[in-house]
Amino acid sequence: MKVPFKENLRIAVVGAGAIGCYYGGKLAASGCDVTFLMRSDLEAVREKGLTITSTDDPPVTLPPGSVKVAGTPGEIGPVDLILIGLKTTANHAFETLIPPLLHESTAILTFQNGLGNEARLGELFGGERVMGGLCFVCLNRVAPGVIEHYGHGTVSIGEYEGEPHERTHQLAGLLRKAGIEVDVVESLLEERWRKLVWNIPFNGLSIAAGGVTTDRVIADEGLHGLARALMEETIAIAAACGHEIEASYADYQFERTVPMGAYKPSSLIDYWENRPVEVEAIWGAPLREARRAGIEAGRLELLYGLIRWLVAARVGG
Amino acid sequence: MKVPFKENLRIAVVGAGAIGCYYGGKLAASGCDVTFLMRSDLEAVREKGLTITSTDDPPVTLPPGSVKVAGTPGEIGPVDLILIGLKTTANHAFETLIPPLLHESTAILTFQNGLGNEARLGELFGGERVMGGLCFVCLNRVAPGVIEHYGHGTVSIGEYEGEPHERTHQLAGLLRKAGIEVDVVESLLEERWRKLVWNIPFNGLSIAAGGVTTDRVIADEGLHGLARALMEETIAIAAACGHEIEASYADYQFERTVPMGAYKPSSLIDYWENRPVEVEAIWGAPLREARRAGIEAGRLELLYGLIRWLVAARVGG
Repeated sequence: MKVPFKENLRIAVVGAGAIGCYYGGKLAASGCDVTFLMRSDLEAVREKGLTITSTDDPPVTLPPGSVKVAGTPGEIGPVDLILIGLKTTANHAFETLIPPLLHESTAILTFQNGLGNEARLGELFGGERVMGGLCFVCLNRVAPGVIEHYGHGTVSIGEYEGEPHERTHQLAGLLRKAGIEVDVVESLLEERWRKLVWNIPFNGLSIAAGGVTTDRVIADEGLHGLARALMEETIAIAAACGHEIEASYADYQFERTVPMGAYKPSSLIDYWENRPVEVEAIWGAPLREARRAGIEAGRLELLYGLIRWLVAARVGG
Repeated sequence: MKVPFKENLRIAVVGAGAIGCYYGGKLAASGCDVTFLMRSDLEAVREKGLTITSTDDPPVTLPPGSVKVAGTPGEIGPVDLILIGLKTTANHAFETLIPPLLHESTAILTFQNGLGNEARLGELFGGERVMGGLCFVCLNRVAPGVIEHYGHGTVSIGEYEGEPHERTHQLAGLLRKAGIEVDVVESLLEERWRKLVWNIPFNGLSIAAGGVTTDRVIADEGLHGLARALMEETIAIAAACGHEIEASYADYQFERTVPMGAYKPSSLIDYWENRPVEVEAIWGAPLREARRAGIEAGRLELLYGLIRWLVAARVGG
């Protein structure tokens, strides 16, 4: 079933928030046949089209007549590639949104955060369909169909099962043609664990320590020590799950965080703005992997439990 | 130097908050020669005396003329027994407050919370002087020299070094004569660890989970699981430090907490009221013991780090 993409493949974007609109919009502007599945933004995008402004790149405009949008997956029908930009807290919608989009060899590419998304898609629709990407990009959806891009944009893509395939390189080519930097990675899951080495401590402490930006975690000796211990624990869990990450990767993560200044991790913004927080993808799924591998993960367990409670206990949470 | 107490021993109470005034006041009312070292409450107690009202027992009144108070330890001079009721966050004052009160065989009895107080006193003044007590009592200091007692009051006393001695039983006798229930314990440190099996999770989560009472920790499946994991970790640390606590003790601690209802642990009240929180005695010292014993304590490490930060980051903290 893992077959190369045909020429002029049809793409559906499921979850047309900032990530979905940005990458889907760039692909559409470069000539791909992209349809956006939308709900609340549907009418606005039909009327006004889709716009991406950028601090680095020329703007991208898909005028009202040319942008393809649909309100239900049935209107779109089977496609060759599904790009998933849903927030992981909406993964329960996979079972209703995706089946109408599938033909025998449809590939499913998730650009979501954290761990467990590929596994869930594989369980539901077959692992050989599933591809994933890690997006290193700063975006904001400022209005329906209006995305602001603040730099970066590289994606690291790979297969959920096995090594890169012909279709992986084809996808990389399409993304590059759309002006996006792409790395094709040998092991997608190892990349996910590498990203968690940052997200688990920095997103986690930002909420659990009462709302702190990355610079405070780095500057306070106590929080710094907690972040490092969480990184080391994450690296140990990854190793127990078969993904070797060098110990010096923790140092690297600290070094690259310093220039970010008073950065607010996305989870903290979600937490403050009373939006769903990706608790399971960032902390819950890695903890369950640790338990499956039979490795001690006391720090992650406590952090996960506290964040889960703090998020649920928010007013309106 | 560990000698029996003489008849009519002289007692100094250092740290005359609720604990010091309650136990010192009861001892004084029963005929013991007790002097209270006071600072901010000194003038008020000199003028109005000391009063203990109780929901269970007849009130105790030490009229202005009879209550002995002093503003400096030098005015008191050497005594036979020093009862320490200081908050552990004031332990840095040991070195100035205690030496003037010492003669060759002065015993030092700490009624403070948590771990590390006996060890610190032993380091400074010799371990053979040191005795400790765990107080199971509900008290509130409502005004200078005015203590309200809401029931209970049992103390478990023991020696810091070795088993109960003649002086331990003499002290038990004095406290009983003053109307206080006393257990003489074989191992004071084991009792301290048993108390920590409750304090580490319930005081800890009450702050780290954003201000929760014990009933919510018990009712929420996630917090309940964290509390149990913290209890098990504490029992494992205690074992590594040579204090065997049966695994069922965690069940017992949950059972006895249910009837407390929406109980606010003392640390939470201190935290909310911007008073010093006994972070080192309850979480820091046990974590350092775990490290000394070479045992993994990731949950305690994370909890300690978060509470330390949250307390320091309070307005006015």
